[in-house]
Amino acid sequence: MAARQQLTPVLRRLKLTRASCPSISRQCALRRSLSPPARCFSNSRRQQFQKTSPAAAVQGKLTSETYPDLKRDSRFAQLTEEHVAYFRQLLGSESAVIDGVTRSDAADDIEPFNTDWMRKYRGHCRLVLKPGSTEEVSQILKYCNDNMLAVVPQGGNTGLVGGSVPVFDEIVINMGRMNKILEFDEVSGTLVAEAGCILEVADQFLASKGYIFPLDLGAKGSCQIGGNVSTNAGGLRLLRYGSLHGNVLGIEAVLADGTVVDDLCKLRKNNTGYDLKQLFIGAEGTIGIITKVSILCPQRSPAQNVAFFGLESFEQVQRAFREAKGQLSEILSAFELMDESSQALVRQVTGNKRPLEGEYPFYCLIETSGSNADHDSEKLQAFLEDVMEKGIVADGTLAQDETQIRSLWAWREGIPEALSHLGGTYKYDVSIPLRELYQLVEDTRARVEAAGLIGDTDEFPVRAVVGYGHMGDANLHLNVSTRRFDERVEKVLEPFVYEWIAERQGSISAEHGLGLMKKKFIGYSRNPTMVGLMKNIKTTFDPNGILNPYKYL
Amino acid sequence: MAARQQLTPVLRRLKLTRASCPSISRQCALRRSLSPPARCFSNSRRQQFQKTSPAAAVQGKLTSETYPDLKRDSRFAQLTEEHVAYFRQLLGSESAVIDGVTRSDAADDIEPFNTDWMRKYRGHCRLVLKPGSTEEVSQILKYCNDNMLAVVPQGGNTGLVGGSVPVFDEIVINMGRMNKILEFDEVSGTLVAEAGCILEVADQFLASKGYIFPLDLGAKGSCQIGGNVSTNAGGLRLLRYGSLHGNVLGIEAVLADGTVVDDLCKLRKNNTGYDLKQLFIGAEGTIGIITKVSILCPQRSPAQNVAFFGLESFEQVQRAFREAKGQLSEILSAFELMDESSQALVRQVTGNKRPLEGEYPFYCLIETSGSNADHDSEKLQAFLEDVMEKGIVADGTLAQDETQIRSLWAWREGIPEALSHLGGTYKYDVSIPLRELYQLVEDTRARVEAAGLIGDTDEFPVRAVVGYGHMGDANLHLNVSTRRFDERVEKVLEPFVYEWIAERQGSISAEHGLGLMKKKFIGYSRNPTMVGLMKNIKTTFDPNGILNPYKYL
Repeated sequence: MAARQQLTPVLRRLKLTRASCPSISRQCALRRSLSPPARCFSNSRRQQFQKTSPAAAVQGKLTSETYPDLKRDSRFAQLTEEHVAYFRQLLGSESAVIDGVTRSDAADDIEPFNTDWMRKYRGHCRLVLKPGSTEEVSQILKYCNDNMLAVVPQGGNTGLVGGSVPVFDEIVINMGRMNKILEFDEVSGTLVAEAGCILEVADQFLASKGYIFPLDLGAKGSCQIGGNVSTNAGGLRLLRYGSLHGNVLGIEAVLADGTVVDDLCKLRKNNTGYDLKQLFIGAEGTIGIITKVSILCPQRSPAQNVAFFGLESFEQVQRAFREAKGQLSEILSAFELMDESSQALVRQVTGNKRPLEGEYPFYCLIETSGSNADHDSEKLQAFLEDVMEKGIVADGTLAQDETQIRSLWAWREGIPEALSHLGGTYKYDVSIPLRELYQLVEDTRARVEAAGLIGDTDEFPVRAVVGYGHMGDANLHLNVSTRRFDERVEKVLEPFVYEWIAERQGSISAEHGLGLMKKKFIGYSRNPTMVGLMKNIKTTFDPNGILNPYKYL
Repeated sequence: MAARQQLTPVLRRLKLTRASCPSISRQCALRRSLSPPARCFSNSRRQQFQKTSPAAAVQGKLTSETYPDLKRDSRFAQLTEEHVAYFRQLLGSESAVIDGVTRSDAADDIEPFNTDWMRKYRGHCRLVLKPGSTEEVSQILKYCNDNMLAVVPQGGNTGLVGGSVPVFDEIVINMGRMNKILEFDEVSGTLVAEAGCILEVADQFLASKGYIFPLDLGAKGSCQIGGNVSTNAGGLRLLRYGSLHGNVLGIEAVLADGTVVDDLCKLRKNNTGYDLKQLFIGAEGTIGIITKVSILCPQRSPAQNVAFFGLESFEQVQRAFREAKGQLSEILSAFELMDESSQALVRQVTGNKRPLEGEYPFYCLIETSGSNADHDSEKLQAFLEDVMEKGIVADGTLAQDETQIRSLWAWREGIPEALSHLGGTYKYDVSIPLRELYQLVEDTRARVEAAGLIGDTDEFPVRAVVGYGHMGDANLHLNVSTRRFDERVEKVLEPFVYEWIAERQGSISAEHGLGLMKKKFIGYSRNPTMVGLMKNIKTTFDPNGILNPYKYL
């Protein structure tokens, strides 16, 4: 880290301030699952609105009540004691079956599996199975398929669209017990692990070998790699390491009828037929349950730098991004965007001193990861001089050590948590061609303002319209923070936001997936031909439709 | 390039020699399609053996003769004048239809579309269609599907497994007229182009914008990006830029019944349903014809270095690879392997002076691409010192300019061409876990030796067993160079090679695909469950089986 000191002169010359050390730590943001936040109510209808107190949320409505149009599929059987007896005998271990069918006192044990992290979705399943092997997953599914029992595959249950919890009484198949790291090749960097392996555990194992998991996201302490692959998680460093479609080398999965698909390839290249594993990446458990994953991991970069900038316009943000791509090139590992509204909320909730002295309409967080600290610092120094001299960046600060790196990241990663403490939030996770990325926030804010719904005082239902996200991936998180449910807000937002995105061939779900929340909005991002083909795929792989029903398509 | 001069002292100190400038240029290797080489006869049966003279090869046997077990599918209609009239009227332009049905003098015009680049496969189609738009492709396919006319989609026809030419009288749909670059976003680096766009044309266009196509291969002057995507081409820099599954953002394709699948997404992230485009990547035109491609292109690196090493053992090659990954890390863009046999053949054919003075059992070519020439040179210098001091590398040379870079690359890229001038070659394009990569060459050579089939004089049918390939991707090209066809050679090689690979969960086709050549060997790399699922996919997308029949599965 000595090399980083070299930057001090240029910082002084350019009047870049040093990073302050606010107490909100990245670790805190990463551990968000420990302190359930208030309700998000993206795409909600009135009945979806929930009180913001976590205690109240635990007692929240059932999904079947908030979505009264959804009816339980009568083709699915009701769970009986006989079914439970079969699973008990199959799985053996007492802890592998949480049985609310024959036990009346199991409700509290089952609740965490019925409810999503945001406490927005709540099923009423009465049976949770925790298989310990692929063979057990296979036998569970075969039995369920033969007996028309619907199931929900569940990983760390950290999803944001209600994909990992039951809607009605679907059996939860929780993968948490299949959590072993199976194999690592130190020459190629190929990791093979069971689906239930926690992302952070895998990454820490890799760190000890000088490698890094090619995916990082706020929920890493709870989410599982099987779930990450099933939802095609994007996260913070896709800009550098690319998508799971490029990094996952193989999977093992179990189909609805119990067939084990062994595609656990460990090779970078294998051009022998259709690349079927790709269908499972992002399928959200609707065509099979991923039981093992083989993934290519890049080497861990010994040098890391984080800079935080204030900018006067989104035009300048785009210029900064182009310059960063050009000048930082192969060492650029993140380029994150935050608007002033988002930072004001973090400040309000944490009370922390801001990284920069002034306020700016936009902020960027730039991270570099490279193999040579001196070289990286030199590149960064040249970049900083350039963007300051060209007037692209108005002010900036550079982390001097690991603590400051975490502090700066917290201003980005702390946004969702800050929002969750302030009330309900309409959350949109979208992808739009870069040049129009922020226009959606401005147009949405203008609509809300025109309707007289936004203001600083309690009379206004909307507190703020904020935008932040992964600039490098053209992935915007548009969040509308509200004080209370107000039907007028929803009418102003929807279908406006979806139509706006569709007009620009954007994606209505860049990285969160479809789940239950966005099932009905897929038509804004996919044409009927595509949706028809997807339905054919679903029917081919799961003809009885027992896998994660009521969701996705 | 000034920075490269800094390396001279270290080169002297380490007794690294400077690169000599052999006259075989990379350009020459790239232009291989201009000078048809002799026959490859991988996986051949006796009747596949062909004389090595290109002239003779042009008059080579029809595929239907070399594969007598293959029978024309009687469900397919015979082409009539009425069919041709329809296509003439549909496509309008005279040059869009090469008609051997009603014209008796069209044979010469049709021949290039009937025969693959190696002149190993030869169909007898009598009609070539060159659509100029997606709508025309759609109408062609709809008509063919309605009338049970089989078709072969064809790009640059540079494939190595017979996938792009007819087996019998299938209509060739050649994409060469759909060759436009449609769109480029200079901020995101997203290129949208028609399928028939030549790879080199796309790359040159990108070069003018400071970007690079994330794929490079010897045939770049002839191959088309639609064909590259359809065959999931790998090539020289997959190590750095990753596979097409990660880089292709969207495709437009036409299904067998004429349905246009518009999945021409330009976004890095779009988690709305199954990622159907992935099925088309590597499907070799069996489920649809790709008409447009959207692809994410990285920025072009201004600095490039190429080093060439001699090493004493494959153990040392592996150590060198690990060190290169660790020390060159984010700037490493290629790590290629060549054994002494392969280099001796290049020397024999070209007569060029070798890059190194001594002979070594193994050679590596290492390329770096980065944004800062000084930094790259410094990293490379440290790496060179390290691998020399540790005795990992026995000798080495570093290109001093662009000409020398091309010269060094020619020793790697010139291998297939050199082989083609020497007689027939059994070619195996395989992927094996890295630590055993070269063992296949040694085991194969030992078998051929034990059978008394290899030697320096004419009495031996086998001239050499050579190994080379993309070390960074664990992709080996095992080539057995022969003087003449000898059934004993084939018996020694097959099924031995395939069984050897299957035992190690390797791939029998790392990057060349299946085509006709490897259709029957898929079972060595894919289990029956996978093959069954693939057949379901084929049936779902192409129920009449009109797309590229007799191949792939």
